[in-house]
Amino acid sequence: MADYLHPDRYFDPDPAQRHIARALYGQVAHLPLVCPHGHVDPRLFADPDYRFGSPTEMLLIPDHYIVRMLYSQGVAMEDMAIPRRDGGETERDHRRAWQRFADHFYLFRGTPTGLWLREELADLFDVTELLTGANAQAVYDQIDARLRSPDFAPRRLYERFNIEVLATTDAATDTLAHHQAIRDSGWPGRIVPTFRPDAVVNLDMDGWRAQIELLGQVSGIDVVDYASYIRALEQRRTVFKAMGATATDHAALSAHTDPLSAVEADAIFQRGLNGTATAADAWRFTGHMLLEMARMSVEDGLVMQVHVGSFRNHNEQVYERFGRDMGADIPVASEFTRNLRPLLNRFGNDPRFRLILFNLDETTYGRELAPLAGHYPAVKLGPPWWFFDSLGGMRRYFDLVLETAGIYNTAGFNDDTRAYPSIPARHDVWRRAAADWLAGLVVRHMVDEADAADMAQEMAYGLAKRAYNL
Amino acid sequence: MADYLHPDRYFDPDPAQRHIARALYGQVAHLPLVCPHGHVDPRLFADPDYRFGSPTEMLLIPDHYIVRMLYSQGVAMEDMAIPRRDGGETERDHRRAWQRFADHFYLFRGTPTGLWLREELADLFDVTELLTGANAQAVYDQIDARLRSPDFAPRRLYERFNIEVLATTDAATDTLAHHQAIRDSGWPGRIVPTFRPDAVVNLDMDGWRAQIELLGQVSGIDVVDYASYIRALEQRRTVFKAMGATATDHAALSAHTDPLSAVEADAIFQRGLNGTATAADAWRFTGHMLLEMARMSVEDGLVMQVHVGSFRNHNEQVYERFGRDMGADIPVASEFTRNLRPLLNRFGNDPRFRLILFNLDETTYGRELAPLAGHYPAVKLGPPWWFFDSLGGMRRYFDLVLETAGIYNTAGFNDDTRAYPSIPARHDVWRRAAADWLAGLVVRHMVDEADAADMAQEMAYGLAKRAYNL
Amino acid sequence: MADYLHPDRYFDPDPAQRHIARALYGQVAHLPLVCPHGHVDPRLFADPDYRFGSPTEMLLIPDHYIVRMLYSQGVAMEDMAIPRRDGGETERDHRRAWQRFADHFYLFRGTPTGLWLREELADLFDVTELLTGANAQAVYDQIDARLRSPDFAPRRLYERFNIEVLATTDAATDTLAHHQAIRDSGWPGRIVPTFRPDAVVNLDMDGWRAQIELLGQVSGIDVVDYASYIRALEQRRTVFKAMGATATDHAALSAHTDPLSAVEADAIFQRGLNGTATAADAWRFTGHMLLEMARMSVEDGLVMQVHVGSFRNHNEQVYERFGRDMGADIPVASEFTRNLRPLLNRFGNDPRFRLILFNLDETTYGRELAPLAGHYPAVKLGPPWWFFDSLGGMRRYFDLVLETAGIYNTAGFNDDTRAYPSIPARHDVWRRAAADWLAGLVVRHMVDEADAADMAQEMAYGLAKRAYNL
Repeated sequence: MADYLHPDRYFDPDPAQRHIARALYGQVAHLPLVCPHGHVDPRLFADPDYRFGSPTEMLLIPDHYIVRMLYSQGVAMEDMAIPRRDGGETERDHRRAWQRFADHFYLFRGTPTGLWLREELADLFDVTELLTGANAQAVYDQIDARLRSPDFAPRRLYERFNIEVLATTDAATDTLAHHQAIRDSGWPGRIVPTFRPDAVVNLDMDGWRAQIELLGQVSGIDVVDYASYIRALEQRRTVFKAMGATATDHAALSAHTDPLSAVEADAIFQRGLNGTATAADAWRFTGHMLLEMARMSVEDGLVMQVHVGSFRNHNEQVYERFGRDMGADIPVASEFTRNLRPLLNRFGNDPRFRLILFNLDETTYGRELAPLAGHYPAVKLGPPWWFFDSLGGMRRYFDLVLETAGIYNTAGFNDDTRAYPSIPARHDVWRRAAADWLAGLVVRHMVDEADAADMAQEMAYGLAKRAYNL
Repeated sequence: MADYLHPDRYFDPDPAQRHIARALYGQVAHLPLVCPHGHVDPRLFADPDYRFGSPTEMLLIPDHYIVRMLYSQGVAMEDMAIPRRDGGETERDHRRAWQRFADHFYLFRGTPTGLWLREELADLFDVTELLTGANAQAVYDQIDARLRSPDFAPRRLYERFNIEVLATTDAATDTLAHHQAIRDSGWPGRIVPTFRPDAVVNLDMDGWRAQIELLGQVSGIDVVDYASYIRALEQRRTVFKAMGATATDHAALSAHTDPLSAVEADAIFQRGLNGTATAADAWRFTGHMLLEMARMSVEDGLVMQVHVGSFRNHNEQVYERFGRDMGADIPVASEFTRNLRPLLNRFGNDPRFRLILFNLDETTYGRELAPLAGHYPAVKLGPPWWFFDSLGGMRRYFDLVLETAGIYNTAGFNDDTRAYPSIPARHDVWRRAAADWLAGLVVRHMVDEADAADMAQEMAYGLAKRAYNL
Repeated sequence: MADYLHPDRYFDPDPAQRHIARALYGQVAHLPLVCPHGHVDPRLFADPDYRFGSPTEMLLIPDHYIVRMLYSQGVAMEDMAIPRRDGGETERDHRRAWQRFADHFYLFRGTPTGLWLREELADLFDVTELLTGANAQAVYDQIDARLRSPDFAPRRLYERFNIEVLATTDAATDTLAHHQAIRDSGWPGRIVPTFRPDAVVNLDMDGWRAQIELLGQVSGIDVVDYASYIRALEQRRTVFKAMGATATDHAALSAHTDPLSAVEADAIFQRGLNGTATAADAWRFTGHMLLEMARMSVEDGLVMQVHVGSFRNHNEQVYERFGRDMGADIPVASEFTRNLRPLLNRFGNDPRFRLILFNLDETTYGRELAPLAGHYPAVKLGPPWWFFDSLGGMRRYFDLVLETAGIYNTAGFNDDTRAYPSIPARHDVWRRAAADWLAGLVVRHMVDEADAADMAQEMAYGLAKRAYNL
């Protein structure tokens, strides 16, 4: 296995840099995992006997990174056993779907998905050779056998993974029943919710009106106008906070934050309710609500995360047949300097406010985000997101952000994953990448080893913990 | 010469990485050259006795990379023996023009043009010292003598270069007489045309109406309205395909693809014919025609290439005096996620369709192009184009594209050159850059050597061949 | 100290590359400093006995790079002894402000500010350990003692720094009295002014009308309309030129250069005078004036610098309380290809004109600026500016610009600083970065060592001197 997962993997080949990288990594490799943002389902922890299904169910079907790559090379989603919205025919034999995946595993050469999977298969299932069409069924058997063991209950893995805290992401209308069940169970793992109100904020999302109705039910506040809508949101935030939440999360195509007057906001809200809101209404309302959510964060202390720039469901045919999160979300260019100015001028100097920014347009790292984070007390930068959660993406992030913002205006790492078993691999890639980048500063005599060791510790652990008040 | 053209040139200096790069390169250095896109004149092959003119005629005058650099440093184009459109005075003594070029050759230090020329002069003409003002005339003599030899007939060079197939780029109105002559000659070299309809698609190009008339003549279809125009284009594509074409090519300032109704399209076409089309008409028509060309590709199977983002003839004075392709084309920012959506939603999931995208805005690599190619079955990314066909450009392309799209959603390399003798040098730079990049993955233990060897083979040869159905 | 400031600092760790970098750097390290653009106050040289104040006054208060970083981490500007516009309470004890700075010095790990300060403290004040909260007062004492010595008079430092020429940046309305005093004093240092007319060009800047009045006074021309305004500007340029200026400088949010007719220009100017100019007026007038300034440069030979893309005073609260240059300027995306076209088509081919472009949007380096500089005789690129005046910023600049434009279409380095004592450190970083980058070309066998030595000399000294006609 030494050859398969080399202990110096992902480090620069220069012997001097590698030597230091190894030392720095050694100091942080075993620190607990702080997971302040992600999409793991809280049900995994609510039921102490929860089990993952087949290897295909655990590793292939829910992973849109894998699905998109296979689809891009002509594998039909039906053949990957992805369920259709209309209940139409799809592959039922999980072994055959797995075989197709293995036949195409060479597509992931050099990609982060390939690296995570390699690591995951080795660490969790002792699979220490590359997945191929030839070994597909044997590997399936090996995984399948392990999955049935009690060691693979999510709570057991939580301990094995050395997780210190894990935040889920939950709709504003969620009752948090699973979180309540976790608390009631007496299990000491720390699973906290995150308040994500997108579905009740974006007037143009499918089913917005139903979501508003649900918001009324779950909050116990009759949502009939903008004022009652705001009260209901505030109520939900209070409930989330009581259940341990320290943060909110907001997805937006753009970061614009122009305020509406209360009268305008209410007029748009009413048009939303009676189904006459325009695309422009939705656009303006979303921007205004970012501002309003910032106001609430100032008041209740929940850290505000904003994820900007994903054009969701770009492929209509895929969306109609299979729904969301099928690998068909494509980034767009973003702008922060002008767009965030209304919000930052109102709240950016307030010591009670913290705003963590994520983004899919790397050109904004050095041009806008690092200068903003390097000036406004409220702003911190989240780690490279999604397509850029990769070795190359991390190197570019370090290079583009840290000379201007320093490391202390960043929020460390988060794995942002719905693939629970991949969490250790993802943190490990970050810790190795950070150690290697810091080693590069040391061999260039920019920082000394003592400073680098402090920085490695912060990047692996401290920054994320403090940024999210965990 | 070992010192002049070092066998390890362009590889990373780290000994471990270099060792692997050398091995990977060694496995692909002598593979045949697949040249699926470029601008070599088919006349070179139609006439078995074709000879290049003087060294200045072959190497300086037609190379807008060289012309622009000398011009940027104050050398008048007239002094480079560039012909003027008005027939005005220009340098007639090719030796004096060559001397000026040599006097300024230091300008190309570190540039791809400098590297290609060094390689070309060494390989083809045994010039194994840097070109300078001092050796200019001796080098001229040396090249000139070789050019007269029968070994420098383009067909002989085709064999010497180990070219497997070479695609030219030809106007939709081209009769393909040279291609016919090549076929008729019985020479076994494979020269295929590419259908490039820009001049009949862009209403705002000089002479569009004359081109439409020509289209009517060459197709035998009376082009009087949009419907007959479409029929004529379809007829030309059929002819191109019969002559061996496997692809089309389209240059567009922007990638927008909003459809027009048949009525709108015809109205704009009519305004074009009677000279009243506006700039907005031309803009909308171009976008619509990309969509229409995609529809034809689905039907006839020709691979569709789109080259986006060159602002042509930026310098009016140079254009008026010397015409097109004088080094005065400047890139602009591009957008694909929203712009290509109409086209991709219509055809992007169709297994009969293939779209290869090229672009001059590197910010779109990671943000838009790699995610699109990593999802849509129809989309592949072309190699770095023009200003970015360079060692640095390739490194950035590999870094920005391949973690998201993998190598298998790219179209390998093409040289895109009108400078026939530079073809081997250009492929060699790519093969070395790819080997070095793959070696970087190996020393970081991201892929093993066996996988890297497969990938090197694909990047040097297989990807291009398959992407273009060659 | 060898360990503290390593002689090989900032060089690549690869031994072969480092060996060559060291040799190249050794050949340029002691060349005189050419400082063609910066913001040092000419008073420093006008008064032969000028002394810097306290360490806090010299190093902390005026350095907006430091101020912004401390502010971003919650240190109040009042606590840094920054004076308030309203004269309100701020820290008066410079030792306490210094202590706060030292307590937070870890924030600058890996940042250019951190590197410059380390170098400056070591070279000028023999401080050879990292600044910390613990040694803050001892370091303060050490600096303070040196500052009182006659060796720290700015003229003495000028000689010690081996400066050959230093350009200041001066308002169009400046009488240049300090420059006159320097000349009158007989001191042989070469301090030249630079004509910066922003305050009289941008109608929307605070106090524009007062500036116009001042322009009238200082030029002796009654500025009552556009024509007299232009005459007054021309008069000031003549005065600047007579005082040794070789260049002008223009800050613009965007690079647009659409011409106004004389009638339009006058109408807008009149609206400016009577206080009815709109934001659109100001926008159009600024663009037109870039064109007009280019016209004057063609006539009087002053090199034109344009700095594009800084959104000034982004933080209203900071601006209202502390004024300009407090670290609250944030970059925006820029566009040059279309925006500069009117200007370049009018003057870009004129051998009498030189335009040096600076910018805060790195995406334009490869896409727009290098192609423009690599074609138009008039255009040269300035070095990486502000946030990008850093080791990483330089590496990206070299990588993105130089394959297309070559080094000879760049303007070398300038320090652009108001922090006089940091000048040697800033040039040293550039010289090391350039030597290392050139060494990278040598070990990759792209250029030979002789060419690299020429290039290093040019990048350290020759390019800047010639670009600015110094």
